[in-house]
Amino acid sequence: MASERMRSVLWKDGGLQLIDQRQLPKELVLMRCESVDEVKRAIFEMAVRGAPAIGAAGAFGLAIAARAFPLTDAATKEELLDAIKQAKATIDDARPTAVNLVWATGQVVKDVEKKAATPGVSLPEIVSFTLEAAQALAEEDVEINRRLSQFGAEIVKQGANILHHCNTGALATVDIGTAIGVIYESHKQGKNVHVWVDETRPRLQGARLTAWELMREGVPLHLIADNAAGYLMLSGKVDVVLFGADRVAANGDVVNKIGTYKLSVVAKENKVPVFACVPTSTIDLNFKEGLSIPIEERNAEEVTMVGSERIAPENCPVFNPAFDVTPHQYLTGIITDEGICYPPFEVSLAKAKAAADKRMQDKRD
Amino acid sequence: MASERMRSVLWKDGGLQLIDQRQLPKELVLMRCESVDEVKRAIFEMAVRGAPAIGAAGAFGLAIAARAFPLTDAATKEELLDAIKQAKATIDDARPTAVNLVWATGQVVKDVEKKAATPGVSLPEIVSFTLEAAQALAEEDVEINRRLSQFGAEIVKQGANILHHCNTGALATVDIGTAIGVIYESHKQGKNVHVWVDETRPRLQGARLTAWELMREGVPLHLIADNAAGYLMLSGKVDVVLFGADRVAANGDVVNKIGTYKLSVVAKENKVPVFACVPTSTIDLNFKEGLSIPIEERNAEEVTMVGSERIAPENCPVFNPAFDVTPHQYLTGIITDEGICYPPFEVSLAKAKAAADKRMQDKRD
Repeated sequence: MASERMRSVLWKDGGLQLIDQRQLPKELVLMRCESVDEVKRAIFEMAVRGAPAIGAAGAFGLAIAARAFPLTDAATKEELLDAIKQAKATIDDARPTAVNLVWATGQVVKDVEKKAATPGVSLPEIVSFTLEAAQALAEEDVEINRRLSQFGAEIVKQGANILHHCNTGALATVDIGTAIGVIYESHKQGKNVHVWVDETRPRLQGARLTAWELMREGVPLHLIADNAAGYLMLSGKVDVVLFGADRVAANGDVVNKIGTYKLSVVAKENKVPVFACVPTSTIDLNFKEGLSIPIEERNAEEVTMVGSERIAPENCPVFNPAFDVTPHQYLTGIITDEGICYPPFEVSLAKAKAAADKRMQDKRD
Repeated sequence: MASERMRSVLWKDGGLQLIDQRQLPKELVLMRCESVDEVKRAIFEMAVRGAPAIGAAGAFGLAIAARAFPLTDAATKEELLDAIKQAKATIDDARPTAVNLVWATGQVVKDVEKKAATPGVSLPEIVSFTLEAAQALAEEDVEINRRLSQFGAEIVKQGANILHHCNTGALATVDIGTAIGVIYESHKQGKNVHVWVDETRPRLQGARLTAWELMREGVPLHLIADNAAGYLMLSGKVDVVLFGADRVAANGDVVNKIGTYKLSVVAKENKVPVFACVPTSTIDLNFKEGLSIPIEERNAEEVTMVGSERIAPENCPVFNPAFDVTPHQYLTGIITDEGICYPPFEVSLAKAKAAADKRMQDKRD
């Protein structure tokens, strides 16, 4: 299991410590952020990536802002709150389309505003509370992944060969991960699992990050070109396919890294079970079905260049969609922090979502 | 259409001219081979690749050997034939598993031995004939691809979006190519085709070679990560899938570059027609079905390194199968130089094979 040393986002010695993911898999470099601008830069330059990890980094950025606020005798609550909100605007601007970043910083601001409204609260107390709110948010991510991983491990058989797409691990989250969390938990339970790691072109998150994480945790693995996944399934060498998701529609359609759809179709053809692993926060009941969603296109260099190596002709036209939609009929189930959802997904996802809301409510009360 | 300038293997100015495929897509470098050792090295170092291209290069190597033989007054036919056979052994040794190389050089030796047995033939006549035999072999490859391409163009509709895997073009053959030959012919016929070029991990023949060839010939294209092919099919943006094959079994099972199986399954799921494009020489009626064939595993660096760029952790375990088998039920048809074979393939392939044998016989008579 991922230990605290492995955390991609960690508050340590009065500052934010990140694993610099740009240096992987070549080197494990820990970087420190001690100002709001340093947090912004780390997010902007993708030293930290993965929605939950970015969100937690942003939240800790607000704690840095609060702690930097000059607590003079003339300072007011309003000025402190303004400084925190100013930091939120600065940090949110690093990745304007990262929904989870805006949500996480918004969550901290909301909690801090509530605290500040408490009669008799002092400025130093608000400052401390800002860090506590960020830490609570990070811990909640870890807790959700722990729950999800334990539910998920139930469907992993002894000696299973697991095929995994993209990176969904401790690096993409605060700790543990989603689909990789299920793998860690199965490994910890002594199930002797082995992982086929899809390299995940074009950005190679599987080769660069997932292989690195699994090797570090001692989970047996083989890296493969995405093209080899079909051959492995046809040869009976895959027992289950696991991946994460960026967004899950009410009907169970899943938006995830490009290649997920192709993989899922071939898995179904070979009767290999397919599970998406997601926190319930990823399920959007207002998003009725996935196929209508516009897919982000990314730049050509992701396909034509690998690092400094050119692999296609100059000026070669490229089509580079970042995500695809896997219609729900290709999924065996969706593993969440409230248990495993099976078809009909309209029913099971709504139930999981309601259970998560209730758990949050109980926690707050 | 590929013009003579484009030939990957060409006899020119008394020597063998090759397109150095190692330099693509960065630069078009023509290299010359003027000795048997230079031909051997070009094949060994993969300056020339693709079964028909390698075969033709080897055949021209024998012509070089014959022309280098010292025609002294004391020289005998036996000595000349020995020199040619010695050259065959040297060249064959460059790629010991390349069936087509051994076949091509063997064909030239057989033809030359027959010529040498003609009463009254002179040594200079045998030398000239060696070159003629090599040229006939190269021209036969061009002719086969031309026939195949014309048959294939019949199934390509006006404005078709064609998805192509690996490289099957003028570079892999003496000229024109197989699946890419069908694309060139459709383009030449004014069908306004557009090609989705699978980059074809791990060796990237699509990005490096196919994209380069198509751009040079002015065929509209977009390069894609292999992972994007499923999304394109689900979005209705692919009208037909074309690829080559290294070997076709009597029942129509096809051995081809890794990823072909995965692609074909997703195409079938989306009702997109799938055609393998092969010379009849690739059909092996003694090879009953494909799934029993052992698949060559290649080295880990093909996956972990891209040029000098490391993309996975040091010592990362890798599984790297070079080929996969696509069972015949995923193919709509098999395009050959004797027409298009449809299911039941046992019948149609045997018929195509017999027609090819007859055509060859008629040509020899």
